[in-house]
Amino acid sequence: MINDMPRYRLKLAYDGAHFHGWQAQDNAVSVQESLETAIKKFCGETVRTIAAGRTDHGVHARGQIAHVDLKRDTDTNTLRNAINYHLHSRALVVLEASVEKPEHFHARFSATARCYRYRILNRPIRCPLREGKVWFVHRPLQVKDMQAAAQVLCGHHDFSAFRAAGCQASSAQRTLDTLDITREDDEIIIIAQARSFLYRQVRIMVGTLAQIGCGRMTLEELKNVLQSKDRRQSGLTAPAHGLCLEEVCYD
Amino acid sequence: MINDMPRYRLKLAYDGAHFHGWQAQDNAVSVQESLETAIKKFCGETVRTIAAGRTDHGVHARGQIAHVDLKRDTDTNTLRNAINYHLHSRALVVLEASVEKPEHFHARFSATARCYRYRILNRPIRCPLREGKVWFVHRPLQVKDMQAAAQVLCGHHDFSAFRAAGCQASSAQRTLDTLDITREDDEIIIIAQARSFLYRQVRIMVGTLAQIGCGRMTLEELKNVLQSKDRRQSGLTAPAHGLCLEEVCYD
Repeated sequence: MINDMPRYRLKLAYDGAHFHGWQAQDNAVSVQESLETAIKKFCGETVRTIAAGRTDHGVHARGQIAHVDLKRDTDTNTLRNAINYHLHSRALVVLEASVEKPEHFHARFSATARCYRYRILNRPIRCPLREGKVWFVHRPLQVKDMQAAAQVLCGHHDFSAFRAAGCQASSAQRTLDTLDITREDDEIIIIAQARSFLYRQVRIMVGTLAQIGCGRMTLEELKNVLQSKDRRQSGLTAPAHGLCLEEVCYD
Repeated sequence: MINDMPRYRLKLAYDGAHFHGWQAQDNAVSVQESLETAIKKFCGETVRTIAAGRTDHGVHARGQIAHVDLKRDTDTNTLRNAINYHLHSRALVVLEASVEKPEHFHARFSATARCYRYRILNRPIRCPLREGKVWFVHRPLQVKDMQAAAQVLCGHHDFSAFRAAGCQASSAQRTLDTLDITREDDEIIIIAQARSFLYRQVRIMVGTLAQIGCGRMTLEELKNVLQSKDRRQSGLTAPAHGLCLEEVCYD
């Protein structure tokens, strides 16, 4: 059976604090359900939306990509504005909408790269104006040590030591293309890019990098952690609210 | 009578959304009362704090300065940390504390300049991650026109057309030292600096600049507004949540 309904690609931004993650579930507000409810209000269709990355509870997005198949043929600006109108929320918006061919585009499986950004506020005192958007770490972190550690993690590895329980991927082999770490004033910004990540991989890598940055783990120890393939050897999982899905790439 | 109690200068940051402004009042949470309650919990003293700028309901601060006289002689780091501990809130923090001489330092009257920053998000769609921190204006604003208008407002003028009802200043004469307007990606940033401002002056200037930016007011009309000294001639008051008190200067 050929799916000849138009497929719409949606670029989404949301504040993760307002949602229990992407995935629809009972008794909790999810991004997916909010989006599907707004679409239903607009065109009456009960739809299933598919996202590039099923972000966890609390994780933000500035460039999440989802797709949805609609029976109704709709101008993309109208679709974008109508969904935003029916969302009744300032915590989630459709930034862009476009038409794709179902046989060529799948939000999750066609993605060639996901880019995440993690913000650590690294100074002695919290910042009320960035509360909920950064991970506050008061101990001074050495960016140079974290950058050296990033070189160990980049490339193709078995990342078993950096995936959380509940990860459904059959293989833990991943290629980490980018792990850039820079200091911008009182923040440390970590950019991580790969074709795909394991469950909570970015947050476990950030938690481990923070341990290296404050001198609690050495580069040698990090290499052993990676080789151990044992989650118990790596660092804590950095909190969700510092993480943002910035961009998803397609060919 | 000579005040020989040590005077402490406090640098504060807060998220204005959580407070009904600086000033203590009945039936509403203010920055001043939150601060004074925390100080009382720490040292048992009932104090009055004085701020450089009595920010309105919703206005943020990254560099508000306040002072307080305490009977107890306290190490400044201890004072800062103790107040922060007793605040029980992530919406308000003391960033720095230092000791001043009461005869030389008064948070309000010794200030030689106040610097405010106003953020306008100027694009077609809202941004969930900056909600509550920027004024969302979807109509395209012409920064060049706004910059030309800023030149009209800079300098020494009677700003009666730019002060809100309830302003208690005896004179509306003010010298506006800086009114810088720049575009940074999808944001327009307005920096306003003066020795002091009239009640809601910055927000009324920003509202008026936005009218100029979208072509609803000309430069000639702005000059007439300034000369009219009539609040009804100027633009709307831009919302509080786009405004942040960045810095207060002292000799």
